[in-house]
Amino acid sequence: MSNVNLNVLDDSVLIKPISEEKQGGIVLPSSAEKKPTKGEVIATGQGSRSSSGDRMALTVKTGDKVFYRQWAGTEIEHDNEKLIVMKESDILAIVK
Amino acid sequence: MSNVNLNVLDDSVLIKPISEEKQGGIVLPSSAEKKPTKGEVIATGQGSRSSSGDRMALTVKTGDKVFYRQWAGTEIEHDNEKLIVMKESDILAIVK
Amino acid sequence: MSNVNLNVLDDSVLIKPISEEKQGGIVLPSSAEKKPTKGEVIATGQGSRSSSGDRMALTVKTGDKVFYRQWAGTEIEHDNEKLIVMKESDILAIVK
Amino acid sequence: MSNVNLNVLDDSVLIKPISEEKQGGIVLPSSAEKKPTKGEVIATGQGSRSSSGDRMALTVKTGDKVFYRQWAGTEIEHDNEKLIVMKESDILAIVK
Amino acid sequence: MSNVNLNVLDDSVLIKPISEEKQGGIVLPSSAEKKPTKGEVIATGQGSRSSSGDRMALTVKTGDKVFYRQWAGTEIEHDNEKLIVMKESDILAIVK
Amino acid sequence: MSNVNLNVLDDSVLIKPISEEKQGGIVLPSSAEKKPTKGEVIATGQGSRSSSGDRMALTVKTGDKVFYRQWAGTEIEHDNEKLIVMKESDILAIVK
Amino acid sequence: MSNVNLNVLDDSVLIKPISEEKQGGIVLPSSAEKKPTKGEVIATGQGSRSSSGDRMALTVKTGDKVFYRQWAGTEIEHDNEKLIVMKESDILAIVK
Repeated sequence: MSNVNLNVLDDSVLIKPISEEKQGGIVLPSSAEKKPTKGEVIATGQGSRSSSGDRMALTVKTGDKVFYRQWAGTEIEHDNEKLIVMKESDILAIVK
Repeated sequence: MSNVNLNVLDDSVLIKPISEEKQGGIVLPSSAEKKPTKGEVIATGQGSRSSSGDRMALTVKTGDKVFYRQWAGTEIEHDNEKLIVMKESDILAIVK
Repeated sequence: MSNVNLNVLDDSVLIKPISEEKQGGIVLPSSAEKKPTKGEVIATGQGSRSSSGDRMALTVKTGDKVFYRQWAGTEIEHDNEKLIVMKESDILAIVK
Repeated sequence: MSNVNLNVLDDSVLIKPISEEKQGGIVLPSSAEKKPTKGEVIATGQGSRSSSGDRMALTVKTGDKVFYRQWAGTEIEHDNEKLIVMKESDILAIVK
Repeated sequence: MSNVNLNVLDDSVLIKPISEEKQGGIVLPSSAEKKPTKGEVIATGQGSRSSSGDRMALTVKTGDKVFYRQWAGTEIEHDNEKLIVMKESDILAIVK
Repeated sequence: MSNVNLNVLDDSVLIKPISEEKQGGIVLPSSAEKKPTKGEVIATGQGSRSSSGDRMALTVKTGDKVFYRQWAGTEIEHDNEKLIVMKESDILAIVK
Repeated sequence: MSNVNLNVLDDSVLIKPISEEKQGGIVLPSSAEKKPTKGEVIATGQGSRSSSGDRMALTVKTGDKVFYRQWAGTEIEHDNEKLIVMKESDILAIVK
């Protein structure tokens, strides 16, 4: 698991994209247009607030492997790693 | 029923499209433009949250055969299966 | 009343359109552009949820004859019947 | 008062437009472009729901003469009468 | 004060525009493009509803002289008077 | 402090713009395009309402010097003063 | 830490951008198009209000080093410093 000294806020999650070549055993030819849409959750926010102001815990956890929407979130570079900050709602599925 | 090792979030459902040829006994000529809009529910989220933060259980269940909106959701490929992650609100009807 | 083995969700209703010729005793010349906007309610959802998460029962009931907004909802074909899934809010009036 | 066998839903009202010639004693030359914007309330819904799910009664009542927004609502024809289904919020003022 | 036999709904107010010439002692040359944006409150609604369904009383009162947004609301003609029905939120300021 | 006989509503504030020349000791050349974006709070509303209908007091107070969004609000002229009615949310910062 | 005599409102934060050259030990060639997107939190609002009207405290604190969305917020100049007022939701991550 990555060790990144970053916290994210509310219902955001910090994702480290997994390149195609590492996605399972089979190596797929990666076309230039296709961005990776699988990644690992590196950090999670405390959850957004309900209308009464309470934090609603996220479902995903650090270490989860996830599918996320292509073009989701915002890329940041930190300590020479390319990471994506996105909303939990941009996560499509969690691999069990 | 499909066995897919994926979880979905909140009010999302994971759908395995049913191709035209398998939809009931009568085989319809499938035009190139027409995407299947019937499928089987493979996984369901825990429900989205009410304004007070409680989970509101989904109505559809794993195994349900459903009609869904054409172009609904986002396609993901996993273990050589093409699946669609969509919101429960994109489901039009459940076949009893 | 139609017997259709379909359930709809939340605040959706399933409508079987009534063709112009059957709308009352007087047969109106049906122009090609005019879609039927009268129908019979075939199935109703459990109602959408209030902000606290409770189901709010629909006002229309199975068997009601209704006027609905032209172009409302989504057509589905099932067991050789053309039906429309629409929101209850697309129903303009119920014939008493 | 009109007797129409139609119910409307939620915060909708059913309006029978009053033609210009009948609006008070003075007969105004009615231009072709100007739709009537005065009418009589023929039926009212049970009110829309508060966030807790309770019905909030409408302010207008059957029999009220009202001004409404031009182009408001949707026209329906029933029993040879042209009526308009609109939201109560499309009513501008009630004549005392 | 004007005496108009009209009621308005919810958070609406009924405004009688004050023409430029009457706005204080100084007579301003009134350009053709400039609509009056000062007026007198002639009637007020009962207030819109909070999410729990209670009426929230308006701040402006009948008789108040107010500045309002240019082009706010909808003009109606009644008993030979030109009046404007607008939301209270279109009122910019109340003259003390 | 200005003395203006105007009240504003809800979460509105009444602002008297401070011209560039008066903003601190240093006189900046004022370009024609740049509107002043500093001002003094002359009046404040009672606060907008929470979903339960209670007034939520504003943070800014009469006399505060504030930065506000360029082009915020609506200008009104009253007693030969040009004032701006804006939402408190158009205020960027309060000078301590 | 900067000492700025400014307060911000609600869920706003006041950010002092950190220029590229100062971002960690490695000096990156700064392209003309790339605005800094790292900064230091100089002031924070009291938090926006929940639907019941209570203030919901911000997560970021004065002194935090943060990544923020490019083009977020509004620049203000005060005491010869260029600062940005943005919503806390424009902050992508906090450096631990």
